[in-house]
Amino acid sequence: MNKGQLLYEGKAKRLYATEDDNILFVEYKDSATAFNGEKKEEIVGKGILNNRITTVIFEKLQEKGIASHFVKSLSANEQLVRKVDIIPIEVVVRNIAAGSLAKRLGLEEGTSLARPIVEFYYKDDALGDPLITTEHIDVLGIATAQQVQALYESSLRVNEVLRPIFEEVGVILVDFKLEYGVDGEGEVLLADEISPDTCRLWDAETKRKLDKDVFRRDLGSLTEVYEIILTKLGGKSS
Amino acid sequence: MNKGQLLYEGKAKRLYATEDDNILFVEYKDSATAFNGEKKEEIVGKGILNNRITTVIFEKLQEKGIASHFVKSLSANEQLVRKVDIIPIEVVVRNIAAGSLAKRLGLEEGTSLARPIVEFYYKDDALGDPLITTEHIDVLGIATAQQVQALYESSLRVNEVLRPIFEEVGVILVDFKLEYGVDGEGEVLLADEISPDTCRLWDAETKRKLDKDVFRRDLGSLTEVYEIILTKLGGKSS
Ligand SMILES: Nc1ncnc2c1ncn2[C@@H]1O[C@H](COP(=O)(O)OP(=O)(O)O)[C@@H](O)[C@H]1O
Ligand SMILES: Nc1ncnc2c1ncn2[C@@H]1O[C@H](COP(=O)(O)OP(=O)(O)O)[C@@H](O)[C@H]1O
Ligand SMILES: [Mg+2]
Ligand SMILES: [Mg+2]
Repeated sequence: MNKGQLLYEGKAKRLYATEDDNILFVEYKDSATAFNGEKKEEIVGKGILNNRITTVIFEKLQEKGIASHFVKSLSANEQLVRKVDIIPIEVVVRNIAAGSLAKRLGLEEGTSLARPIVEFYYKDDALGDPLITTEHIDVLGIATAQQVQALYESSLRVNEVLRPIFEEVGVILVDFKLEYGVDGEGEVLLADEISPDTCRLWDAETKRKLDKDVFRRDLGSLTEVYEIILTKLGGKSS
Repeated sequence: MNKGQLLYEGKAKRLYATEDDNILFVEYKDSATAFNGEKKEEIVGKGILNNRITTVIFEKLQEKGIASHFVKSLSANEQLVRKVDIIPIEVVVRNIAAGSLAKRLGLEEGTSLARPIVEFYYKDDALGDPLITTEHIDVLGIATAQQVQALYESSLRVNEVLRPIFEEVGVILVDFKLEYGVDGEGEVLLADEISPDTCRLWDAETKRKLDKDVFRRDLGSLTEVYEIILTKLGGKSS
């Protein structure tokens, strides 16, 4: 597969065309951004780490029967994925209150939830990715009721698979964000990335944050904690 | 009934005890507030208008079989209501996009919705009354699933009854907020007020705003437009 035309440059990745209309070339960038792009920094090595971590996680999901856009890793910071039309909904699954949920509901960060909850956010940078309900999704016409149901169930299933994987290596899966798209056959497919950029991961013993909150809240070296996650997941860091 | 001890002073009303443990005395104040209390003004006559409008509306709902806390109007700005434990959820029903919905979804104010939508907000001034989902309600433990269902269905029913009542007098019911409480027998009861403070009401022809947006957005005399609503609903303004 050859890297063709640059199709899209996002905050964390670049997408390129390939000879195959159904396949994209994804390059993970060395940029970290937060607060809807307000905070921004170049962090050498981040792209490689996220490509590797995403690869390990999508492979583990595939083993458990959860299909995704992931095709294969190509190089340290590049992978091939199946091209989809991204549904502009960020699906967030939470096991423990943190971040915007803790703020919204006035809960202390770290409060365990009685059961995992699923939230939908409208993927729209200009609007600040607001929380939306299923009725808002209906008004916007961005997904059918059937697709929303698929997103909901698939995301809980991803949680069921990932939670024990992290637990076995001493990491708490606090929450995470997923994106889905529709492929050429109209099938809803898990897409984008699953990495410490898109998950909250806490050391089970020390509660040390091993995710992008390290960058958001200036808690130290981002690559140091992403390396810890990659190593714990059995991936090679170089 | 005698006005007993002051039990609660809110932004728009004062609640007093009566000899009857199940009955409260409500006094409508002359204050207007907006943006979670940031904007605040005394407006002489507002209390009388809201007491009268709420009275007319609760009476009309009662005629159509929708029970509420409303017992009777006592004086120009006072009424008796059944005491409930307020469920800290503001239920918003919307027929047309305006205010926070227009902002959240990036819709132009005035966009008709294909069907009425129902939203839940957490009634908590300190948190700024955030939008919440049914799963958040579950996490907070502020209402049972059965109560949420009752709130949802009752609010759509209120919309079905009020919309044509306003339509007949040339007013568009754009959206409105309801509060509910649980009475001594554990029944969920419609409570609080329904007035131009809690509804968006537009003149059907001119689209003139006949509600609290006049105050929020400095569009002229609040009492003038509240008088228009009261008169159109067949109430006497003095
Ligand atoms: N398989 C896919 N096909 C098409 N687009 C994808 C796929 N997976 C992810 N994307 C999209 O590609 C972009 C990835 O870049 P990213 O840097 O994360 O962007 P953003 O700044 O929009 O979050 C995102 O818009 C994401 O939704
Ligand atoms: N029937 C009722 N029994 C008890 N409390 C009520 C009843 N109806 C309304 N309330 C509550 O009384 C208060 C009314 O005052 P208001 O000035 O609107 O207060 P707020 O500033 O909290 O909105 C509100 O907190 C409302 O929830
Ligand atoms: Mg992204
Ligand atoms: Mg109130």
